[in-house]
Amino acid sequence: MSMEVFLREGRGVLLAYDQGLEHGPTDFDERNVDPSFIMKLAAAGRFNGVVFQKGLAEKYYERRVPLILKVNGKTNLVKGEPVARQICSVKRASELGAKAVGYTIYAGSAHESIMLEEFGRIQEQAHALKMAAIAWIYPRGEAIKNDTALEIVAYAARIGLEVGADAVKIKYTGDVESFRWAVKSAGKAKVFMSGGPKAPTEVDFLKQVRGALDAGATGLAVGRNVWQSSDPLKMARLLQRLVIENLSVEEALQN
Amino acid sequence: MSMEVFLREGRGVLLAYDQGLEHGPTDFDERNVDPSFIMKLAAAGRFNGVVFQKGLAEKYYERRVPLILKVNGKTNLVKGEPVARQICSVKRASELGAKAVGYTIYAGSAHESIMLEEFGRIQEQAHALKMAAIAWIYPRGEAIKNDTALEIVAYAARIGLEVGADAVKIKYTGDVESFRWAVKSAGKAKVFMSGGPKAPTEVDFLKQVRGALDAGATGLAVGRNVWQSSDPLKMARLLQRLVIENLSVEEALQN
Amino acid sequence: MSMEVFLREGRGVLLAYDQGLEHGPTDFDERNVDPSFIMKLAAAGRFNGVVFQKGLAEKYYERRVPLILKVNGKTNLVKGEPVARQICSVKRASELGAKAVGYTIYAGSAHESIMLEEFGRIQEQAHALKMAAIAWIYPRGEAIKNDTALEIVAYAARIGLEVGADAVKIKYTGDVESFRWAVKSAGKAKVFMSGGPKAPTEVDFLKQVRGALDAGATGLAVGRNVWQSSDPLKMARLLQRLVIENLSVEEALQN
Amino acid sequence: MSMEVFLREGRGVLLAYDQGLEHGPTDFDERNVDPSFIMKLAAAGRFNGVVFQKGLAEKYYERRVPLILKVNGKTNLVKGEPVARQICSVKRASELGAKAVGYTIYAGSAHESIMLEEFGRIQEQAHALKMAAIAWIYPRGEAIKNDTALEIVAYAARIGLEVGADAVKIKYTGDVESFRWAVKSAGKAKVFMSGGPKAPTEVDFLKQVRGALDAGATGLAVGRNVWQSSDPLKMARLLQRLVIENLSVEEALQN
Amino acid sequence: MSMEVFLREGRGVLLAYDQGLEHGPTDFDERNVDPSFIMKLAAAGRFNGVVFQKGLAEKYYERRVPLILKVNGKTNLVKGEPVARQICSVKRASELGAKAVGYTIYAGSAHESIMLEEFGRIQEQAHALKMAAIAWIYPRGEAIKNDTALEIVAYAARIGLEVGADAVKIKYTGDVESFRWAVKSAGKAKVFMSGGPKAPTEVDFLKQVRGALDAGATGLAVGRNVWQSSDPLKMARLLQRLVIENLSVEEALQN
Repeated sequence: MSMEVFLREGRGVLLAYDQGLEHGPTDFDERNVDPSFIMKLAAAGRFNGVVFQKGLAEKYYERRVPLILKVNGKTNLVKGEPVARQICSVKRASELGAKAVGYTIYAGSAHESIMLEEFGRIQEQAHALKMAAIAWIYPRGEAIKNDTALEIVAYAARIGLEVGADAVKIKYTGDVESFRWAVKSAGKAKVFMSGGPKAPTEVDFLKQVRGALDAGATGLAVGRNVWQSSDPLKMARLLQRLVIENLSVEEALQN
Repeated sequence: MSMEVFLREGRGVLLAYDQGLEHGPTDFDERNVDPSFIMKLAAAGRFNGVVFQKGLAEKYYERRVPLILKVNGKTNLVKGEPVARQICSVKRASELGAKAVGYTIYAGSAHESIMLEEFGRIQEQAHALKMAAIAWIYPRGEAIKNDTALEIVAYAARIGLEVGADAVKIKYTGDVESFRWAVKSAGKAKVFMSGGPKAPTEVDFLKQVRGALDAGATGLAVGRNVWQSSDPLKMARLLQRLVIENLSVEEALQN
Repeated sequence: MSMEVFLREGRGVLLAYDQGLEHGPTDFDERNVDPSFIMKLAAAGRFNGVVFQKGLAEKYYERRVPLILKVNGKTNLVKGEPVARQICSVKRASELGAKAVGYTIYAGSAHESIMLEEFGRIQEQAHALKMAAIAWIYPRGEAIKNDTALEIVAYAARIGLEVGADAVKIKYTGDVESFRWAVKSAGKAKVFMSGGPKAPTEVDFLKQVRGALDAGATGLAVGRNVWQSSDPLKMARLLQRLVIENLSVEEALQN
Repeated sequence: MSMEVFLREGRGVLLAYDQGLEHGPTDFDERNVDPSFIMKLAAAGRFNGVVFQKGLAEKYYERRVPLILKVNGKTNLVKGEPVARQICSVKRASELGAKAVGYTIYAGSAHESIMLEEFGRIQEQAHALKMAAIAWIYPRGEAIKNDTALEIVAYAARIGLEVGADAVKIKYTGDVESFRWAVKSAGKAKVFMSGGPKAPTEVDFLKQVRGALDAGATGLAVGRNVWQSSDPLKMARLLQRLVIENLSVEEALQN
Repeated sequence: MSMEVFLREGRGVLLAYDQGLEHGPTDFDERNVDPSFIMKLAAAGRFNGVVFQKGLAEKYYERRVPLILKVNGKTNLVKGEPVARQICSVKRASELGAKAVGYTIYAGSAHESIMLEEFGRIQEQAHALKMAAIAWIYPRGEAIKNDTALEIVAYAARIGLEVGADAVKIKYTGDVESFRWAVKSAGKAKVFMSGGPKAPTEVDFLKQVRGALDAGATGLAVGRNVWQSSDPLKMARLLQRLVIENLSVEEALQN
């Protein structure tokens, strides 16, 4: 039930590819719509983990990169308070070779209690099968005006810790100082910054990542900023330098 | 857990007959209201599969044509956000000789999460019993203005892939180019075009099918355009030529 | 899992007595409020089956007449979209000597999916214990303007067939021709006409029954038109003649 | 699964003390707030049964008086359509020495189906463990204008019979004649009058009880009219005379 | 299933630290955001128990202080009628070394029945594993105008007793006399005063605690008034004197 398998030098870069279910192929182009491309990229880019839904894991996963199986999900076609229930059993995730399960909790949703309960059960099952449990904590619903506000992001981080997540994926607050508080709130739960939509420029994105790391994050889970990039492998290398080799943005970009 | 049993030359024409529950006998006439007629037609027309609900399978199915047991369903008498829950257990489907289970997911419905969860469980049970799992993905609900729009159909296709369907049944977008994107979005999940309501003319319908095939579809699931036809066996033969022999509409119609 | 035990000459008259839960004792008088009276009537009137809820079966059933145990039900005190859930386990029905379970599906209700799912499970359990599964299909809810309209009754019949009922209990449409279509829609599922509220005259009622039989019905499930009659045994004999001996209304009334 | 343990001369007086959960301690004073007082009163007053929730049974019950364990309940703080779900397992009730389980069904509530289903399951479990199942049937909800109206009380009684209760606890209608119909509607299910709120005078209350008995009731379940009395043991003796010795109100009050 | 492990001289001071999930890190500062700090404080301050959610127990709990594992919880981001479902299994709580499980019931919420039912199940499981079951009873919802009103607090206490809690955590009513009624209403269930938000002054808080004890409380569960204090160990000592040594506020403050 350790996150070690996803880390090098205590840090990790996870390649997220659960957007097909969450957003639909609108995020994709002719190249990255193909999960084989992503699987190859995960290996060639030396990612420390790759995030797939069950269907992709069954049809495309190769055991060269540790797998995080996302066990719940929803489409963005549904209106109203968000809820995503379990689609893949923990046992099935284990059979597919996953080293962790991923689960999204929409904190603040009218259906929050359903997801907290389900995560609670899944976390126990995952640990029993020697898998880590990673919580995507996304505050949503009426009460959430700004989901990158400091107090909201820190709350998200803390929820992950409290409910027993080994690692928590949260949004970046925008600056080091405030994100440090979020990381502190997460305690011994490792924090992965959520890559989010493609940033205007590469440097913008790298600065966010550097900020998160400086604030104490263990790494990031990144999708669109890599596989929507014109040169995904270059972006992968830059992230390796930043995250694993712990270089500055300037150092990483040099050479 | 393979679709092979439903294919000839890598292609398949499935005879759909789940309209009795979904629409009521209003779709039927004195001849096709009788499931025996459909069973005979499936065999005589060399269909690669036949789709029945549990009740029809128990009372009419003969093992000459591979069976897809539709395990959920609903009537069209219910108003509001659609939901269809499991009516037939996977074990029962297997006892009845089914080689696949079929399940409808109303993506976009307020009840989407119930169906995604249920399909997730059913898919695992089906694979454990060596049956394929085929997802009917029908986007519905407030957010869906046009369910044959490119981005909606492609999303439907992708949902099927992500949740682990071996094949996905989706509507045709209207042209080859856009449907190609839907097929691509489905990845290794095989795409079957949904036959839909009876087309104005035979040629209209055949052109749609040819478009879907040219876009990369594996085949189609067709009901009303066959059994509402004045000559169902002729239509069956035309579809065999188009789909299995891969002829053009003109070639298929010749002879 | 055969209906044979409820038939003579391929026909059957079932004595329905589930009104106590569905309508309350307002349907009863000093005599027929007593289930012992009904049990005796069922035997003396040579009914082919008697319909009881669990409580009545436990306290009053004698094995002289085959038992249909109604395993769901509701009161008429509840407003809003109707739903009736399982009250008696299939195992308990079997222990009580039932040869069939009965289950009401309110097709068209916002809760339809709950009942379709539950019936699906119950039907499989009943068959596993060698009992038949009989579906009471009552279309209800916003979309249903007239529940004896041809297309609604035929839809009800078809639902029963599709979901695996061995027999379906539906309302009479009012004329032979239209009811024939309903019977045809039910396919190999046997059709029992629902007796409904007490008809204005005996002859009115007998004509309805005769119409249903002429349309192909297997029989009827009758309650109030028998046990609210001033001479229930006479009515029982008339129904035997009509249904089992297949006489006309005139013939039945003679002698 | 017999009620015999709760009867003397075929009659029974049950001491109800589930008001702590249903109404809160507002019903209590310094003396009767203590369940020990009630337990002693039950024994000294020769009650034929005592009704406790699980918590009271675990901490206060002594096996001198047969126990009815109330296995569901709710507070009166909740607005809207009433629902009370199972709080104590039937197995636990049995371990605590209960000879019966009690369960409230709010007939007419929008949640009626949940309670009918749950009672159905509990009744079967109770019988399997040789305990009786007693239904408190309280019609509630939009449709219920007057819950002591004849047709409502008779319906309540009948529901108990239909769903398999060994005994049913219902409100008094106000006169012998109408309550006789309720008792008749309950058939072989024994009827216990609900004591209700404290009556203006002792004689008023005793007359109600006598009326219920004359109408055929097996006894009553009484709480506030005993333990809110200035002399609970005197009231207990009066009820013994009325119910068990079958005396008139006048006879009971003499001596 | 005894509370003894949490008591010294029949009294107990529990250190509550479930605010991370309930309120978010907004309650915390740089020091007390760290569960290690709390764990050390619990031991050094000689607390009789410490309250953690599963995640904290897994990552920070040391067996020097008896553990109460809070098995349900929710965030304060959700609007509407409150509900908190089970996040940690009772089995897991036991493996983590817990001597009790804690569970919050929002009495008066539209979802009350869900929590009463879940607590009922958890209480039985906890007792089977020799753990106590402690109920946090918080009246909430439309009907609750003032949750420290005498009748509401006494009702809360009584609910705990009725549903089988070994101890109940309730708010203070504000004065000894009224809280005595609440304690009496709780019967043999031990009463712990809820510490609540940080009081204006230390003395204010200590007077409340003293009042609760004088009213018969077994102790208190305190969080913010200790770990938001500038000198938490001093506050811990004061509480020991007040609660365990049973000193007056003046005596406790001397020396």
